[in-house]
Amino acid sequence: MSKAGENWVIGLDFGTDSVRALLVDAATGEEQKSAVRSYPRWNDGLYCNSRLSQFRQHPLDHIEAMEAAIREVLSGIPGDTVSRIRGLSVDTTGSTPVAVDRNGTPLALHPEFAENPNAMFILWKDHTAIAEADEINQLAHRWETDYTMYSGGSYSSEWFWAKMLHIFRTDPEVAQHAYSWMEHCDWIPHLLCGHDDVLTMKRGRCAAGHKALWHEDFGGLPSEAFLTALDPCLKDIRSRLYQQTYTSDIAVGTISPEWAKRTGLPEDVVVGVGAIDAHMGAVGAAIRPYSLVKVVGTSTCDMLVAPVERQVNSLVNGICGQVDGSIVPGMLGFEAGQSAFGDLYQWFARLVTYPVTTLLSDSLNQEEQHGLVSRILATLNREAEALPVTDVDEVALDWINGRRTPDVNPALNGWLTGITLGTDAPRLFKALVEATAFGSKAIVDRFEAEGIPVREIIATGGIAKKSPYVMQVLADVLGRPIRTVKTEQSCALGAAMYAAVVAGVHPSIDAAQEAMSSGFEHEFRPRPDRVAVYATLYQRYQTLGSLQEKATSYRQPQK
Amino acid sequence: MSKAGENWVIGLDFGTDSVRALLVDAATGEEQKSAVRSYPRWNDGLYCNSRLSQFRQHPLDHIEAMEAAIREVLSGIPGDTVSRIRGLSVDTTGSTPVAVDRNGTPLALHPEFAENPNAMFILWKDHTAIAEADEINQLAHRWETDYTMYSGGSYSSEWFWAKMLHIFRTDPEVAQHAYSWMEHCDWIPHLLCGHDDVLTMKRGRCAAGHKALWHEDFGGLPSEAFLTALDPCLKDIRSRLYQQTYTSDIAVGTISPEWAKRTGLPEDVVVGVGAIDAHMGAVGAAIRPYSLVKVVGTSTCDMLVAPVERQVNSLVNGICGQVDGSIVPGMLGFEAGQSAFGDLYQWFARLVTYPVTTLLSDSLNQEEQHGLVSRILATLNREAEALPVTDVDEVALDWINGRRTPDVNPALNGWLTGITLGTDAPRLFKALVEATAFGSKAIVDRFEAEGIPVREIIATGGIAKKSPYVMQVLADVLGRPIRTVKTEQSCALGAAMYAAVVAGVHPSIDAAQEAMSSGFEHEFRPRPDRVAVYATLYQRYQTLGSLQEKATSYRQPQK
Repeated sequence: MSKAGENWVIGLDFGTDSVRALLVDAATGEEQKSAVRSYPRWNDGLYCNSRLSQFRQHPLDHIEAMEAAIREVLSGIPGDTVSRIRGLSVDTTGSTPVAVDRNGTPLALHPEFAENPNAMFILWKDHTAIAEADEINQLAHRWETDYTMYSGGSYSSEWFWAKMLHIFRTDPEVAQHAYSWMEHCDWIPHLLCGHDDVLTMKRGRCAAGHKALWHEDFGGLPSEAFLTALDPCLKDIRSRLYQQTYTSDIAVGTISPEWAKRTGLPEDVVVGVGAIDAHMGAVGAAIRPYSLVKVVGTSTCDMLVAPVERQVNSLVNGICGQVDGSIVPGMLGFEAGQSAFGDLYQWFARLVTYPVTTLLSDSLNQEEQHGLVSRILATLNREAEALPVTDVDEVALDWINGRRTPDVNPALNGWLTGITLGTDAPRLFKALVEATAFGSKAIVDRFEAEGIPVREIIATGGIAKKSPYVMQVLADVLGRPIRTVKTEQSCALGAAMYAAVVAGVHPSIDAAQEAMSSGFEHEFRPRPDRVAVYATLYQRYQTLGSLQEKATSYRQPQK
Repeated sequence: MSKAGENWVIGLDFGTDSVRALLVDAATGEEQKSAVRSYPRWNDGLYCNSRLSQFRQHPLDHIEAMEAAIREVLSGIPGDTVSRIRGLSVDTTGSTPVAVDRNGTPLALHPEFAENPNAMFILWKDHTAIAEADEINQLAHRWETDYTMYSGGSYSSEWFWAKMLHIFRTDPEVAQHAYSWMEHCDWIPHLLCGHDDVLTMKRGRCAAGHKALWHEDFGGLPSEAFLTALDPCLKDIRSRLYQQTYTSDIAVGTISPEWAKRTGLPEDVVVGVGAIDAHMGAVGAAIRPYSLVKVVGTSTCDMLVAPVERQVNSLVNGICGQVDGSIVPGMLGFEAGQSAFGDLYQWFARLVTYPVTTLLSDSLNQEEQHGLVSRILATLNREAEALPVTDVDEVALDWINGRRTPDVNPALNGWLTGITLGTDAPRLFKALVEATAFGSKAIVDRFEAEGIPVREIIATGGIAKKSPYVMQVLADVLGRPIRTVKTEQSCALGAAMYAAVVAGVHPSIDAAQEAMSSGFEHEFRPRPDRVAVYATLYQRYQTLGSLQEKATSYRQPQK
């Protein structure tokens, strides 16, 4: 058993805009210090084209921001403490892959590719590969093995293979020089350890299983025959990727002397296998068997773990991803989610600030206009909260960015119904908040309908912290208590827990969670009167949803 | 034949907020002068409660405003011209009934009822009688004669009998003193003529047929047995109302010496039978057989006339009202309409100005805030007009205030569908404009499906004058040219035409229209490329509409 102050670990959380380094006491989970550094080129809008949904990040952004964030988190920390930093683990956005050379170096780090966006990381939200995702789905559904079977029956344009195929087809120069490809969460640990053989680099189970169709049953990645049938340009790539994958309780190695020097970390710091942010976040938010951890922000990731035996008999129909060990080693990790949550509120706030941005923009500076969206959201939250809830209220469908789970369908869209002359902005906002809660209920209900009990609900992320009204509606709609975690950095804390495991401070991630969890801040309890009326409104949501599905031409991919 | 300058007439148009007097040359239709006077008590909000949808108007408002408007329209006019004013006709809102005494005097003109809203005019948009309308429908549908058969199968809470019954039940004092009831358009002519026997006052065909279930086939108003079955308090009222009705080409009498003096009109001015504003407006907008005249404002009235033989074989299913002579004597008059048109645009403009009214109201005075809605509507019109139209655009349902025609259904409501993260205020506004046009197409299609050809479309009213974008979309959706009339005062001009007929200047309303019509200002022609894409979007509108009808619990009244 570790004592307070004896062993320290670092969780490194690469978000969309910045990287956070969190210094944590491995015995208590106490968050000693946190430092954030944004990505300079990304913040200047370089290499991106939002009209084309092209979002790329230069590896130098990650390198420079990481070095600065770690140096900052160590600055002012007593040398005695720094010398007791034992481990470091990493989470990143995903799927965020990059083309690399034989040494595992992203091509954009070579001078001839330094300004080529196709040689950089293809950020999770890049949607340039929609056509390629369609092709993958069509081929997979008619292949003898449907490789999408553990991904809810549908491969996304946001994922590894679609992005690789798109780049190969559109940039022959990159295609020719790309020896292999790596996920962001796999590259960082090997960079820190100074490894230079891409074929022996340990790839994480999480990104491989959830984003690259890797599964033990398939013998690893999809077969050479499948990939070549998809496009001859993918011939041979499989042998230059990986067959083996590793859970995050495994060490990648020890930090390299170069990176120890650049960051100021001790030379014996152990670096763990990386994973995708929401998965580490679930661990940081104290996930345990049959808890559903909702990471609630612009969208949601809904994470659940269950004993692996589950997998033997049944797949969970309509849930996005199911991977052995992706969240917690030895457990089956489920990833579900809603493609718009806070985004829906932001959309509405932008809608109603239209007169301000078009007609009054000259009277307000940019900062005031930016602040207005937050202020209007605060007002809408307050006024919606004060409204009564009746079974004839306006009802919305939350699929403004398509539906992720249950039953992925990117062609679905947002609806607002029940509008009368008396419908005003707070009433529509209330309907939107309720719709996001109904979307959450559809996920919980699907888990249970498929025989996976949901025993508790834990919420983390920006909305969980900042919107008690939304959390209360969620509790009322689900008819279950929801606990929000104390830490504001679930992802970085989860990475720190894994760092404590790979460094040997704790024998398992269970033990690390036991010692290091932040505990809960608040419990939102369902109010019985609201539970009853929301049951009726949820039926109307379901009826509307099935009406839209009937009216929409998109066909579910055939299983 | 009358020569220019030889014969003058006055059209008197009582709107919701004000009365307009229009002085017109009976030979040419030239609008010499117009004067408007608002209703003082109404403008102070007296006797109304918008939360209860109670809207009442004091008869003194009408008397004072009328006297002032006529005096003003005559002021500065040469005595030679004034002396050649031959006739005056009246249109008003409707159904706007009032309880009257034996002399036809509204009870509120007696001191003991002067402040009692139930003794005043019950304005068309008063919705206090919803329960009574339901009862009338239920009884009518099971009665041996379904008295709603010429009213599209449904009686409205906005109409004569529902309002009378509601007042009788809730105000015994008024019930006891109400010898009879009159529509606003019937009362004004008799007031001007100084008549004092309510039993011999000539009631207009228009309000009687469209709002009071009067029909020749029924032997006039609904039977004594029916009314008594509805409520014993209605026993005997039928005999104190009327059985005979008159079209607007009939004179009520000659102006009384008192009113000649009060207004400055010649003592031989002939006063015609009154009618409801949209009906007179259709005449002023040059309606002829099988033209559809759309009076387009906050809502629409869609008026059509057809030869009376039509009636023999068939009722037009789902159209609100069908009355012989209600618009043009000798023609069957059809009244259809959309319960929200400009109201839908206003609703959206108010929705998006929410941040301004809640958060920025301190920085703007009331006038600036009022002006903002107009400015935002102008901006939305301009930006929506610039958008491309594709068959995957957002689609709305326009039933924000229920559906009037075809197939009345007050339980239907507004929908906004196809919303994505890229949906902004101009795109939603475009969908709303298109939805109102689709609602218009549903009416035109229904007329034609029932064998009534629609040979031309004429538009008048505020939106027709002020929103070329809306008119162009309407032409594109209908796939027909739409002509807007030159006059801004179709209703008052239509009343002036009837005044010329009752005064004997023209032998018939056809002749009066021929001589006095203002002509057309603009023709909006359908653009072939838009006609094609709107055909697809209209199908989506119809599909959504039938989905909502399936999902809505309201049952059409049984025929």
